Amino acid sequence: MTELAAAIAAKVNFDQNGLVPAIAQQHDSGEVLMLAWMNRESLAQTLASGRVTYWSRSRAALWRKGDTSGHEQHLVELRIDCDGDALLLLVDQKGPACHTGERCCFFDRVEGGVVTKAKPAIPPLTRR
Amino acid sequence: MTELAAAIAAKVNFDQNGLVPAIAQQHDSGEVLMLAWMNRESLAQTLASGRVTYWSRSRAALWRKGDTSGHEQHLVELRIDCDGDALLLLVDQKGPACHTGERCCFFDRVEGGVVTKAKPAIPPLTRR
Repeated sequence: MTELAAAIAAKVNFDQNGLVPAIAQQHDSGEVLMLAWMNRESLAQTLASGRVTYWSRSRAALWRKGDTSGHEQHLVELRIDCDGDALLLLVDQKGPACHTGERCCFFDRVEGGVVTKAKPAIPPLTRR
Repeated sequence: MTELAAAIAAKVNFDQNGLVPAIAQQHDSGEVLMLAWMNRESLAQTLASGRVTYWSRSRAALWRKGDTSGHEQHLVELRIDCDGDALLLLVDQKGPACHTGERCCFFDRVEGGVVTKAKPAIPPLTRR
């Protein structure tokens, strides 16, 4: 682990499963793309490579975003919250961030007792 | 629990502790203010009142944002992610969101091996 990664890992309060939630936000538009999880190793790899790498809880494996989909996330800036238990990743997202093909994962809106599909702040690239 | 809250609770995948992470984003500026946690009851109260209410893990109690600080969060729109295990709250935040007095909790930036204070996207209201 690099000095940087060690410093960050010391500042981050990983939970009892060794994970911390990470919010990915498109750096220029401000759109919140997704929330996923990181462990020490995925955080270290993200910092070393600039390619955002999560820990997939369902697959129990490192998950470098875009390796299978091509929809890479490049890290622009990493922020840590005031008590060290959440990360904010300012990223440059290539194509859709969501596995459904939508630009972001937060496309379901709750309104007036029903869940409807929200119009994305940025139209999915696949529709452009 | 209202019909709405029941519907939402059915769609949300609460974790083994009965919690789901909730991202609060200022609805007009796009600034990510904070990440906190909700359980079924806090989600139901948020939907019923429009005042964002979290579950405080440290105090093990409902935490209606602003009750002690005066810095209320008003819900503008609730979104759920594609697999139901994260919430995005579009809010109108009164004053600072962070207990440190900063507008948002993500003011520590990692850059070049050190952690520095990031310039907030929006200056804290207390400094205006």
